[in-house]
Amino acid sequence: MTKNVFVSTFPFCRTSNYALDILIQNGHSVTINPLGRKMKPEEVAEYAKDFDSLIAGTEDLRQLVQTSSNLKLISRVGVGLDSVPLDLCKENGIAVAYTPDAVSPAVSELALGLIIDLFRQVGIADRELRSGGWSRPYGIRIGKSKIGILGCGRIGTRLAYHLLGLAPAEILICDIIDKSEFIRELQNYADSLHNSQLKFSKNWNRTLIRQVSHKEIYQEADCLTVHIPLSETNRNLITSNEIKMMKSTSYLINTARAGIINEEDIYQGIVNGSIAGAAIDVFEEEPYHGPLTQLENVILTQHMGSCSIDCREDMEKEASENVVGFWKGEELEARVV
Amino acid sequence: MTKNVFVSTFPFCRTSNYALDILIQNGHSVTINPLGRKMKPEEVAEYAKDFDSLIAGTEDLRQLVQTSSNLKLISRVGVGLDSVPLDLCKENGIAVAYTPDAVSPAVSELALGLIIDLFRQVGIADRELRSGGWSRPYGIRIGKSKIGILGCGRIGTRLAYHLLGLAPAEILICDIIDKSEFIRELQNYADSLHNSQLKFSKNWNRTLIRQVSHKEIYQEADCLTVHIPLSETNRNLITSNEIKMMKSTSYLINTARAGIINEEDIYQGIVNGSIAGAAIDVFEEEPYHGPLTQLENVILTQHMGSCSIDCREDMEKEASENVVGFWKGEELEARVV
Repeated sequence: MTKNVFVSTFPFCRTSNYALDILIQNGHSVTINPLGRKMKPEEVAEYAKDFDSLIAGTEDLRQLVQTSSNLKLISRVGVGLDSVPLDLCKENGIAVAYTPDAVSPAVSELALGLIIDLFRQVGIADRELRSGGWSRPYGIRIGKSKIGILGCGRIGTRLAYHLLGLAPAEILICDIIDKSEFIRELQNYADSLHNSQLKFSKNWNRTLIRQVSHKEIYQEADCLTVHIPLSETNRNLITSNEIKMMKSTSYLINTARAGIINEEDIYQGIVNGSIAGAAIDVFEEEPYHGPLTQLENVILTQHMGSCSIDCREDMEKEASENVVGFWKGEELEARVV
Repeated sequence: MTKNVFVSTFPFCRTSNYALDILIQNGHSVTINPLGRKMKPEEVAEYAKDFDSLIAGTEDLRQLVQTSSNLKLISRVGVGLDSVPLDLCKENGIAVAYTPDAVSPAVSELALGLIIDLFRQVGIADRELRSGGWSRPYGIRIGKSKIGILGCGRIGTRLAYHLLGLAPAEILICDIIDKSEFIRELQNYADSLHNSQLKFSKNWNRTLIRQVSHKEIYQEADCLTVHIPLSETNRNLITSNEIKMMKSTSYLINTARAGIINEEDIYQGIVNGSIAGAAIDVFEEEPYHGPLTQLENVILTQHMGSCSIDCREDMEKEASENVVGFWKGEELEARVV
């Protein structure tokens, strides 16, 4: 039996053919998204309908799952499962696997970079200089700020570790799970690192790390960065009400999923001065062409939280291995349905 | 006796009048650069010639020192002294003070942000998205890279600490002084942090920290960031010869002084593909309007390494305190001549 795999995610195997080779060496026939961009729900439903396996990005798969009678496996490249109708997959006997660990290191680093970018107005300064200006914009510094991490799972945990070496005034962690064990560990490191830092240079803060409520994180964070999955509970978690609770000098970062923060409300919040700016990597419709492109105090990236070469290769490799393992009848560690 | 202070640095007291108030409360008469931009050598020589104290930015002060018979004190806002003719000041009985510690935290954070920006192509992605494109550029990650710190003084030391939490493959330190004590301390922290990180998440490197030669840092670093003063020895330290030694995939960051890396050679190195890109904060002539603005794979900022609100305020406060202390006859800790 030849097994047919459709790869809807874009890009796939841009920097290495390893993930493709695994499939072919194991007897799979592979067809890759020919559109060179993210597929729309009806496109993936049409293109993938005769295949038994799908290697998917963040395409909305509901229509495909509703209509395909051939599909047996969805192997997600990445961690979010908001695009996959899990209940319906279960009902229709479609297995679902994902790559939860491979993606995290790339996202947490990008989030840190975006905090500094926003705080120091790097993008604004670059654009101004390129068009002939030179106003030397001032910014703020992690070392004097409260950084709010909304969601302390794989990515939020990494980001908290990244921040240790910068000694923020506070790291505010908001999570539905009690994180006191992790916070205790992190606080110990922050304290001993602080003593070490002072041996070799001056002007370091002692960082305080604490778990806070949603209300507190909105009210206190100088930068709030979101690292939760998009679920029905989390959809529109942050709307104009929450944005209004934030400091007018604060920044918002979304490298998670567009639906978590209402896109129109971010735009309004920035235009109204409820917040100072935002870095947005994920959009309701991608590629994004909306009104945020008109604003100066935003950084807009292209759903590229995962887009470091090593992480993409790891994710694609794991997604291919999940396909191969599934058809060999192996138990998949990364299987969710 | 009324003491007259000219403030040539721009901006001054943008976010707080504290530094100005200190001067006035202590009986100084203060005149501020009216041009609203960095003064040229002849401008500062003309404007400041009748004053006994100068609070200076990075303006070239040779002409002023050569011609003024009134000047008794130069109080630099910042750390670099390449703009001050120290020998001539000594000869002419002009004292020189600076603010070496206040500036460092702002520079080291910006440098870290620029590394991630370059690695993940944030600026390129933002520009492309704003002009209608969406190619999802891939990048590399600190967690898999060798970060080269050229100059491990106040700023380089801080940057090394910042990097710990990101667990680079290697931190390469190049300095004219033996840094083994610092590196031993840093390595201990990296190792124990690594064990802690693995308790709470996967996929962390164990970081190796080592002191390397100039040749090694050029050849091995995936990103080379420069944190040395501009001295006669360091002028044109990095020219096309050094840039050619670098990996074609590597990045160069200059938040120190323009004269250290030859500006024309950076431009050529990027155009020729000797390196993958650069982030440049300091220029031979500022405001900068040169050919680097034509390139996509550069980040250009506006000599704003020091421009976090807290650091600017600390620097200006210390610079004013140095003026006040000098005229009170106090011994200044921050006096260099």
